[in-house]
Amino acid sequence: MVKFKGYEFVDGGVCAAEGFTAGGVIAGIKAGNTTKRDLAMIFCAERCKTAALFTSNKVKGAPILVSKEHLKDGYAQAIIVNSGNANTCNPDGVEIAKEMCELAAEALDISAEDVLVGSTGVIGQKLDIKPIRIMVPTLAKSLSAKNSGDAVEAIMTTDTRKKEVAVEFEMNGRKCHVGGMSKGSGMINPNMATMLAFITTDVAIAQELLEKALRKVNALTYNMVCVDGDTSTNDSIFLMSSGLAKNKEIICEDKSYEVFVNALYAVMMNLARETARDGEGATKLIECIVNNAPTEEIARSIAKSVISSSLVKAALFAADANWGRILCAIGYAEGDFEIDRTSVELASAKGKMTVCVDGAGISFSEDVAKEILSEDEVKILVDLHSGEESAVAWGCDLTFDYVKINAEYRT
Amino acid sequence: MVKFKGYEFVDGGVCAAEGFTAGGVIAGIKAGNTTKRDLAMIFCAERCKTAALFTSNKVKGAPILVSKEHLKDGYAQAIIVNSGNANTCNPDGVEIAKEMCELAAEALDISAEDVLVGSTGVIGQKLDIKPIRIMVPTLAKSLSAKNSGDAVEAIMTTDTRKKEVAVEFEMNGRKCHVGGMSKGSGMINPNMATMLAFITTDVAIAQELLEKALRKVNALTYNMVCVDGDTSTNDSIFLMSSGLAKNKEIICEDKSYEVFVNALYAVMMNLARETARDGEGATKLIECIVNNAPTEEIARSIAKSVISSSLVKAALFAADANWGRILCAIGYAEGDFEIDRTSVELASAKGKMTVCVDGAGISFSEDVAKEILSEDEVKILVDLHSGEESAVAWGCDLTFDYVKINAEYRT
Repeated sequence: MVKFKGYEFVDGGVCAAEGFTAGGVIAGIKAGNTTKRDLAMIFCAERCKTAALFTSNKVKGAPILVSKEHLKDGYAQAIIVNSGNANTCNPDGVEIAKEMCELAAEALDISAEDVLVGSTGVIGQKLDIKPIRIMVPTLAKSLSAKNSGDAVEAIMTTDTRKKEVAVEFEMNGRKCHVGGMSKGSGMINPNMATMLAFITTDVAIAQELLEKALRKVNALTYNMVCVDGDTSTNDSIFLMSSGLAKNKEIICEDKSYEVFVNALYAVMMNLARETARDGEGATKLIECIVNNAPTEEIARSIAKSVISSSLVKAALFAADANWGRILCAIGYAEGDFEIDRTSVELASAKGKMTVCVDGAGISFSEDVAKEILSEDEVKILVDLHSGEESAVAWGCDLTFDYVKINAEYRT
Repeated sequence: MVKFKGYEFVDGGVCAAEGFTAGGVIAGIKAGNTTKRDLAMIFCAERCKTAALFTSNKVKGAPILVSKEHLKDGYAQAIIVNSGNANTCNPDGVEIAKEMCELAAEALDISAEDVLVGSTGVIGQKLDIKPIRIMVPTLAKSLSAKNSGDAVEAIMTTDTRKKEVAVEFEMNGRKCHVGGMSKGSGMINPNMATMLAFITTDVAIAQELLEKALRKVNALTYNMVCVDGDTSTNDSIFLMSSGLAKNKEIICEDKSYEVFVNALYAVMMNLARETARDGEGATKLIECIVNNAPTEEIARSIAKSVISSSLVKAALFAADANWGRILCAIGYAEGDFEIDRTSVELASAKGKMTVCVDGAGISFSEDVAKEILSEDEVKILVDLHSGEESAVAWGCDLTFDYVKINAEYRT
């Protein structure tokens, strides 16, 4: 986890913020699965101002259509999510997503229009509503500020780690929180949302600024993660604000807004990083940092190009300092820039080493390079020496297990 | 090989066209390699009108810089190519590429400005000119119209098959030929050239039309192939015309031009297909055919999106009819189109099966689907039902061996 001054990591994930409870149960949605939780709920004691972002894929899961409809007034109070089936490109998807909201609303005694819905899993198979009908009342009863871990487990698919983060910080002398959880391991592309992510806060903030903050931080975090370049059909991020921290409501882009944006960044950036680390089959997290680029767009394009390259990813799986492939991936990034001043360094907890200066290789110890690249967190530092803009992107290595997982996923 | 009426496949590869000879020798360019040919030459008895296309990567191999310089007058008479080292991002690359041309020119008694050069292999290591100096005279002496196979072998890197094609056809009562060879297995992206390819013809044609034909056919063939989405730094296609078929020179876009363009398509399309089939680690060729799209750009974007998807590729490795991933990849293709009328069929020598209608799944036999997808050539047929444009792209499956090859390539 990357720490930020003034923000303390706390337990509780989505329940760290005042007013929120969560839960997760085993419903048996994927036939034969009776050991893993697969149905999650997040609930707030108050109706929440809510911002959301969805996939840019033209194929959109039914839950996205229903959630968009329910968010028209900008408010939500609960989220219901299943794993094991994406409820996408299948018969009656919208009706089923609606019924999921209705079931949750009934159990929670709120309006169905205040319930958002998410689904993740295989695309194109009918989602059986029966196990959900049976288990929603139990799920609603299980809600607790201590159960965010159950909810995280219930949204996992090929994820191997629970991904939840929460921070505590001060604003106008009040204790405030931002917490979040997400799932995502494959079908991850830096092109809008890239996963299911649920973020909660008790900070009071105007709707317009809540949306603006989410868009800004999303661009710097989830949009900078790549596992395999496939943009999912179901990517959704919801950001709910209970306002229960009782801070003076943020209504303009002042110091308090900045404090909130940084808290959101601390949560979403760490979730994004953990998503890359947990990429399907990955053995290591790859962080590409681009500095001194002529524009921010070019810096981002280069960082994403490097972490998305199958050849760079396969080389790093073998801890092979094949910097030529890194330079090649820089070279096909979009935008107009000079390659001849570019330098590349490789770094990890084991040290740092320059492998390329002015766009050409320099001699270095292959043994030391292998030692650096054998760590489970590796940095690729690119310096364009032609401006002042920078960007960071996160990815992972390409391994036998990525192929294995995805050759076997459906059957 | 896909046949075209009026064009007969003949032996000889780049030597099928009148005037051309070729050869390939073992120079030992990659240290320790003394068993595989690694230095190739193509020569024409006449100076040839020559068209070329190069990679769009901002990192360009030294051979590209030198070949561009030598092609300023539009003429060439010989090509020298090595495998085992890309001569890219390394010290003295341009000097070494120039010396390769000078060595060839001296041995062939022609001008160095009439020699083009290509290199393929590892990026960023100094290319040792010494073995090339020693072997160029032997290579020049070995040139023969029967030796195209040696030349093809000498440009292979991770390729497992020799890729050469030639066709014979009639024009104004004269026998004409187009022949070609190419290498490429990894670092293959449908974004400009995508490989080393050398095409020869004896058709007499104006320089401007030679270039136009190459651009047009390249867009339909090499630009529609994807193995791993990495755009190489050394992609080059050279098209040389000896004019020795003695046809009436093609000077406008008449019937004869069309006959020539179709011959070029028959050669480059089959080379492109074979490149996809021979993708690193591939067990099968995947052909995606998009029909009834609103624009050609959209048709191409969808076809490329499907064959580039890591998830589709991994599913097909397992012969798994995971059509949801196909629809997902269609959905993130560029352009404005409706997904709701899209149908998807899977086909091979074993039969054809519809798996998706109007953007949603239909029930089908998983067993029959697996039988269809277990063939070594598989077709994905996408129909948008919203226009008249079409496109074809070629790719391959993503396998354990892709990872193995690329985790071990350099070391």
